[in-house]
Amino acid sequence: MLIAADNLTVTRPVVEAALNRMEADAIIELVRRMEKAGANVIDINSGPLARDPETKMRFLVETVQAATHLPFLVDTSNPKAMEAGLAAGKPNALINGFSLEPEKLERILPLARKYDADIVGYLLQPNGHVPMDEGDLTDIALRVHGEILKAGVDENRLIIDPVIAPAIWENGMRHNREVLSLIRNLPDLLGFPVRTIAGLSNLIAGPGPMEQKGVLERAFLPMLAHAGLSIVLLNIFNPETVRIAGACDAVITSRPFTWAGLS
Amino acid sequence: MLIAADNLTVTRPVVEAALNRMEADAIIELVRRMEKAGANVIDINSGPLARDPETKMRFLVETVQAATHLPFLVDTSNPKAMEAGLAAGKPNALINGFSLEPEKLERILPLARKYDADIVGYLLQPNGHVPMDEGDLTDIALRVHGEILKAGVDENRLIIDPVIAPAIWENGMRHNREVLSLIRNLPDLLGFPVRTIAGLSNLIAGPGPMEQKGVLERAFLPMLAHAGLSIVLLNIFNPETVRIAGACDAVITSRPFTWAGLS
Repeated sequence: MLIAADNLTVTRPVVEAALNRMEADAIIELVRRMEKAGANVIDINSGPLARDPETKMRFLVETVQAATHLPFLVDTSNPKAMEAGLAAGKPNALINGFSLEPEKLERILPLARKYDADIVGYLLQPNGHVPMDEGDLTDIALRVHGEILKAGVDENRLIIDPVIAPAIWENGMRHNREVLSLIRNLPDLLGFPVRTIAGLSNLIAGPGPMEQKGVLERAFLPMLAHAGLSIVLLNIFNPETVRIAGACDAVITSRPFTWAGLS
Repeated sequence: MLIAADNLTVTRPVVEAALNRMEADAIIELVRRMEKAGANVIDINSGPLARDPETKMRFLVETVQAATHLPFLVDTSNPKAMEAGLAAGKPNALINGFSLEPEKLERILPLARKYDADIVGYLLQPNGHVPMDEGDLTDIALRVHGEILKAGVDENRLIIDPVIAPAIWENGMRHNREVLSLIRNLPDLLGFPVRTIAGLSNLIAGPGPMEQKGVLERAFLPMLAHAGLSIVLLNIFNPETVRIAGACDAVITSRPFTWAGLS
């Protein structure tokens, strides 16, 4: 299981300020700390970038590449920003992401073929909502896969995100149990070893006590890992959770076990 | 998922000394601490009790009952001690346990019917070894279930222990992955909602760094919980692991989620 770090996001004031002023230093330092803390992939969450989307995203991608050789997810809903990020970041840039929303199908999905890039496909309804009815997840996964094929994208480029719901949502945990079984069943359902990604921080989104939030994400993460999750997107500055991710790998992989293999 | 605490064991010097001198106070205090720390079930691990098995086990059971109303596992390989424990502890005493070893089939298993008690069935080979070949676990589970029926014990009395292997054993982790899928499949395999128990402390048995041991057991526990484990046997004085067990319940049960439900 790879670890993608979700800390490079404009919702963090330090990132927002650096992006506004186009100052690379704070971002370079942050990304180096993320890599040192165990990140295998960097999520570049720029937000929608209403102003100067190409310039801003090119700045972000070039800054990340100045800090690390890790691959990164270009995480924006803005098609112009996405394309600028892919152009500047090839071949280390992944598209994060598309869904069945019409604008995503029209303007984001084609970029996967154009830039020969991995692309995250969210299991959301066409209106962008999380599907909360049993069975819908499977239908949407089949439709997302169908859209990939229709767009002429190699199916091995697809990374499915089944979208973890916040625990405090009504029926959120029921949804998350369905997410676990979907992750387990997706390779059989789609007929190839499709990769999956999930945002662990979603689970603990909203109000709630910090310590219990940490415990809950550490209880859910091994369930995701054992279900076969390929990439977990998480707060890399929570070292106990990162250690749990490493221990999950020691359980699920066929490498011989050693205590030294655990951080 | 219920939590059984494995701390009342003669391998602890304080317990061994109290048992040798038949002094109840230290045991009562220990059991009360175990209950306060979150135990739902107490494992009374007396060892084989070569001398005065009936007297010693009766003392242990009566002492535990003086400390708590919790149910308890009578955990001994000595049939005389087992019977004395069941007689003194009915109806709160569970048998821990039997296996396909001839002596266990002849002298332990019949006590489940005689005392109408729940009984743990270990998935061990008839020679007492952990089965390390794929497929063996399933065969042994079917045979253990068959022995229950042959002995005239209600199958709902059976609690299967698939026996977690130490991580440091060669192929230990492979075995433990099979344990996870067996726990998930047992109800279908046996055709009824059979309960399961597993000793988490086995995973980290042997030499190894304490902190990494804690991380490994906390990574494996949610996998067991999500596979459907009914009872986890663990060191109740590891509060972080106990909190993870509670968070696992918040994920796997259909009760509405609240942060207040997490300790």
